[in-house]
Amino acid sequence: MATTIKDIANRLGVSISTVSKGLNGASDISEDLRQFVLDTAIEMGYQTKKMKKAENKKLALFIENMNYDTPESFGYDLVLGFRQVALRDDWDVTIFPVTPEFQTQNKYDSYLLKNGYSGAFLVGFALQDSWMGQLTHCKVPTVLLDNFIERNTYVGSVETDSAEGIDLAVEHLIRLGHTKIAFFNGSPHSMITARRYDAFITSMEAHHIPINPDLVTFGHYVKDSAKYHVPKLLSSGATAIVCCSDSIAEGVIEECAKRGIRIPQDISVIGFDDLPFAATLTPPLTTVRQDRLDLGKGAYHVLNNLINHVSISRTVMRAKLIERNSTAPVNTTT
Amino acid sequence: MATTIKDIANRLGVSISTVSKGLNGASDISEDLRQFVLDTAIEMGYQTKKMKKAENKKLALFIENMNYDTPESFGYDLVLGFRQVALRDDWDVTIFPVTPEFQTQNKYDSYLLKNGYSGAFLVGFALQDSWMGQLTHCKVPTVLLDNFIERNTYVGSVETDSAEGIDLAVEHLIRLGHTKIAFFNGSPHSMITARRYDAFITSMEAHHIPINPDLVTFGHYVKDSAKYHVPKLLSSGATAIVCCSDSIAEGVIEECAKRGIRIPQDISVIGFDDLPFAATLTPPLTTVRQDRLDLGKGAYHVLNNLINHVSISRTVMRAKLIERNSTAPVNTTT
Repeated sequence: MATTIKDIANRLGVSISTVSKGLNGASDISEDLRQFVLDTAIEMGYQTKKMKKAENKKLALFIENMNYDTPESFGYDLVLGFRQVALRDDWDVTIFPVTPEFQTQNKYDSYLLKNGYSGAFLVGFALQDSWMGQLTHCKVPTVLLDNFIERNTYVGSVETDSAEGIDLAVEHLIRLGHTKIAFFNGSPHSMITARRYDAFITSMEAHHIPINPDLVTFGHYVKDSAKYHVPKLLSSGATAIVCCSDSIAEGVIEECAKRGIRIPQDISVIGFDDLPFAATLTPPLTTVRQDRLDLGKGAYHVLNNLINHVSISRTVMRAKLIERNSTAPVNTTT
Repeated sequence: MATTIKDIANRLGVSISTVSKGLNGASDISEDLRQFVLDTAIEMGYQTKKMKKAENKKLALFIENMNYDTPESFGYDLVLGFRQVALRDDWDVTIFPVTPEFQTQNKYDSYLLKNGYSGAFLVGFALQDSWMGQLTHCKVPTVLLDNFIERNTYVGSVETDSAEGIDLAVEHLIRLGHTKIAFFNGSPHSMITARRYDAFITSMEAHHIPINPDLVTFGHYVKDSAKYHVPKLLSSGATAIVCCSDSIAEGVIEECAKRGIRIPQDISVIGFDDLPFAATLTPPLTTVRQDRLDLGKGAYHVLNNLINHVSISRTVMRAKLIERNSTAPVNTTT
């Protein structure tokens, strides 16, 4: 059932007339409240008249390898943030889940032009995707999450600052006395995996901690990856493990629990992302936060600039360390 | 004398009523024309009513070590681009030329807060400036050109992609057959100087050209710098010189001319910036273009995001190679 003004009023705890004023841009409510009403309306799927008639101002959001349908998923806030700020400029945003087959069947820029899209945001694409190869020469304004196309002034990118994020994690562990710090990276053949690897090496060197190659491993950005890599990291003497996703960290915690290894008393574990489940793990996960709402908003600003012929190459968002209970001073008694 | 609507109409070659419509946001002229009228009005110093009453929405632009008063100067388009997009969101922008003494006398963030500024754009600051030290802890949204503050989510930065720019220059010379490529960098103790040095090394290595340390030198970003460094670069066998500013390149061309060395027949020279004078040198200068208007616009977008609590760390703009006549195939007869 379609969202009504009354639904929004109930959710916000304000009157129907306040919501109506917010949606219609009346001048007797504050700009902050108006924006809050609009943001909530988009989140709840409400369609304003402006949105309905904005068919000539369309942006596409292509999403692959990523869930976005529940607030728990990585893509949810990303899509929401993008749509929230795009609407302020009267853009209608269409979300397309994309498969490799769809890419093979449709040429990227002609698909956009044929269907009247002025630009697109691409999320979750892998380096080997066929659309990635086409982006070197594409002329439709396009923004990529966590990928980068050299020299094409029509394509920009947005990402969280991996270097700063990994450095925050490493420094936090060093302050707690750890030196046998393992690095559990995500999938190879990914730009972001390479960035985080470089970041780890740079950060360890900056802190004068020698790197033990047995403590550096590449898996995949999923929980299941942990069981293949944790045994080696443990037998190589890790007292702390920096994981490149919260899902990996969840798997690491489970693998440790199976072996009677206590987190954080015996081993400290740090995640990356700060997805909602990170705070509810046992123990609650210390992690590097990527603000997905901000990433979505940042992506829109890059795209809007490209559409206006301001050629941004990339925009990098801040990472933040969220300290919870999965990290503690190194256990010197073992 | 203050700019009038008639002045703007004369400049644009349109009627007074069209200008008036553009300034007042009337709906019967196109959005593009309206924006063009507004951009021109700002450029000519016209104050709309909206600007006059926007005293409660103020941004500061602090500028040091840089001219901005004529279209020939680096700062001119930078300031213009920033003001043009800031006005669209009803911000009033005050320009402050700043000295080291002014920084010592005024604490950065309290100066802004005391005077009612919501944020600032800092241009031309050097690492040793006293305000730079204060930015690690400042809580007022701030954007820096060509500088970077770690970890402070209130401070972002904007810059042109030095790595891509230098790589474009090096690749261009290699295509012309050059291998004895000299690199004439700007002032030490500058983030951007360090970035460009790394970019040169990376680019040469990627192209498998060995680096001769005698062909790499640091001077200052001014023309006069050339006379101290050109003799060594020449005696070390350079056939091409990548200069980190157009001013340095201008000096290099003059030093070569004094010695009867022909540009581009004997030596190829590339600049950086593409200031207006670059096209009028003899010969016209091949250079890496930094789009100053875009940098100004990009800076505003970063600042606007920071003000709205979207924590952008940095935004990087594309560099472009502008091929003119100061570069040519390597002279194999010498």
